[in-house]
Amino acid sequence: MGKKKKIPSINPYLSTPTRKRDRPDIQELFKGIKAGNWQHLSRAITLVESRSAQDNVSAKELIKLCLPLSGKSFRMGITGSPGVGKSTFIEALGVQLIEAGHKVAVLAIDPSSSINKGSILGDKTRMDRLSSHPHSFVRPSPAGDSLGGVARTTRESIILCEAAGYDRIIIETVGVGQSEIAVHSMTDFFLLLLLPGGGDELQGIKRGIMEMADLILINKADGEREAIAKKSKRMVQNALHILPPEDKIWTPPVETISALKQKNLDVVMAIIRKYQQLATKEGLLEDKRKQQSAFWLEESINYQLKNFFFQNPKIKERYKTLKSDVLSNKITPFEAADELFRTFVN
Amino acid sequence: MGKKKKIPSINPYLSTPTRKRDRPDIQELFKGIKAGNWQHLSRAITLVESRSAQDNVSAKELIKLCLPLSGKSFRMGITGSPGVGKSTFIEALGVQLIEAGHKVAVLAIDPSSSINKGSILGDKTRMDRLSSHPHSFVRPSPAGDSLGGVARTTRESIILCEAAGYDRIIIETVGVGQSEIAVHSMTDFFLLLLLPGGGDELQGIKRGIMEMADLILINKADGEREAIAKKSKRMVQNALHILPPEDKIWTPPVETISALKQKNLDVVMAIIRKYQQLATKEGLLEDKRKQQSAFWLEESINYQLKNFFFQNPKIKERYKTLKSDVLSNKITPFEAADELFRTFVN
Repeated sequence: MGKKKKIPSINPYLSTPTRKRDRPDIQELFKGIKAGNWQHLSRAITLVESRSAQDNVSAKELIKLCLPLSGKSFRMGITGSPGVGKSTFIEALGVQLIEAGHKVAVLAIDPSSSINKGSILGDKTRMDRLSSHPHSFVRPSPAGDSLGGVARTTRESIILCEAAGYDRIIIETVGVGQSEIAVHSMTDFFLLLLLPGGGDELQGIKRGIMEMADLILINKADGEREAIAKKSKRMVQNALHILPPEDKIWTPPVETISALKQKNLDVVMAIIRKYQQLATKEGLLEDKRKQQSAFWLEESINYQLKNFFFQNPKIKERYKTLKSDVLSNKITPFEAADELFRTFVN
Repeated sequence: MGKKKKIPSINPYLSTPTRKRDRPDIQELFKGIKAGNWQHLSRAITLVESRSAQDNVSAKELIKLCLPLSGKSFRMGITGSPGVGKSTFIEALGVQLIEAGHKVAVLAIDPSSSINKGSILGDKTRMDRLSSHPHSFVRPSPAGDSLGGVARTTRESIILCEAAGYDRIIIETVGVGQSEIAVHSMTDFFLLLLLPGGGDELQGIKRGIMEMADLILINKADGEREAIAKKSKRMVQNALHILPPEDKIWTPPVETISALKQKNLDVVMAIIRKYQQLATKEGLLEDKRKQQSAFWLEESINYQLKNFFFQNPKIKERYKTLKSDVLSNKITPFEAADELFRTFVN
């Protein structure tokens, strides 16, 4: 009841014998995190990502300790189609943030991997300069099997990173699945990266992503692509102009950049700073986070309720028949739901 | 458990003494509907809209009889901000459809009324020419208190209208609330009406509505507004070009019209016909309807589950405390959901 689906797999982060043998000492782990020790932070995230019941208990305890130390970072979500240059951009932005005196944590949700397939190690090495810097922490995470699972893991990892003193958190996600909606609902600032072009490049982006963005960047605006990028910028600006804005106080800017050539990164930094100041001053940031917490509370309840309902053997069987009756128009969906529900409560 | 909220109100359609005394004879009502009798149809919709348990049983019986006769109409959803001219447009389109040999039913969801406030009768008189025509049926419906409630009522009213031989169903909704999402999920073709202008007029439209549209019309393109309307058309076209399309086979056209001056209505008719042909040929219509049925089955289950959960007195009390703990960051939303769920199953 309400339990996660059992999946016959091993969490890759727990698969080395050393880690398997360890029973984590939560107090020690917490001390390490507080001291900003990245190995401890890394082990803590592994714990949060684990599917073992024992680890879940440990993770819960740890999160409880870290929660009072959390909430003080600025959380940025970054999305875009594969090939748009997210890693290069995050590395460039991360280095700038570090140079401005921040501690940067990057959590990359990797949709190509899942817990049973193992995560791509290459992800980590994609950000050479950033991940080798003492003031950064780069962590690829498997996308997992459920949106709720990723959301929980990522939100808890944010808490851990914040407790470890990282004051700029970047969550990377690919803009083709569902995870970017989850990431948007756990970050303060949502950034969409696009390629220069006539618009067809956008077809890889899911509907509604554009409206979620607080900043849109046309990347790879260098060399011959610069003119096309400028055209794309105007097109996106025009589109945004007639789309209803999310916040009244913020109109999402559109800029051309080149992460590779380090072009216009100062503009990006200035925009982020401006948003931060405005959102803090207007109380927007606090409101947003409260709304996000309420959203995840509701999501998590719904998720568990649905699991509880559909794992009921009587429901499982009846649902199959009723759904097929609904699809062949023998019964209305509402009537089918009523009948299922009667089965459930009796 | 799963019951509708009790609301101390009387359904305005049942409030006349004659109707109150009547115990509807379902077989007779069904016969009347099949014969295309609009008074019978009207009484049947009243039954479907009623909150009385006895009426619900009758409605269910009736829907069951009508279901095999349903599904043969083309269902159109029409939305737009207040003042955009929806009623004038629907009247003009409706008359054209009737002239082309169709029987037209208009179900107007009226958000300004709810069951306890009573529906605005003015709605009906807004479409003089159409509602007085023997081949049309115009029915304003109270928006109700819940999205699920409106959806069920409207979907069931569609079934009744189809059983009565109406082969073009128009569902009118105001594009400022949530009902347009529901209407989009129960129609074959979704039409958005806009005013001519520089884009600011769109701010009344909710996010995501533009992407749901199969056809966008800039209304009131007459006299001095014609030039502005043409500019608006280009802007919306540009925006749509970079927004990800819903269907691969259909790019939503943008046209300027004047419902009042009957301008370009033939263009609208041609577009609708083209969509119908294409969607039928490609199997899109059938797929869409199946998806919609599955969607409403899921929605209806979720709705009932949530009601069931939150009506539990233990949950009600605990939820209040836990939500406030979540909002003040004392506990994560996931942990709070886990605890609530433990309370629920114990």
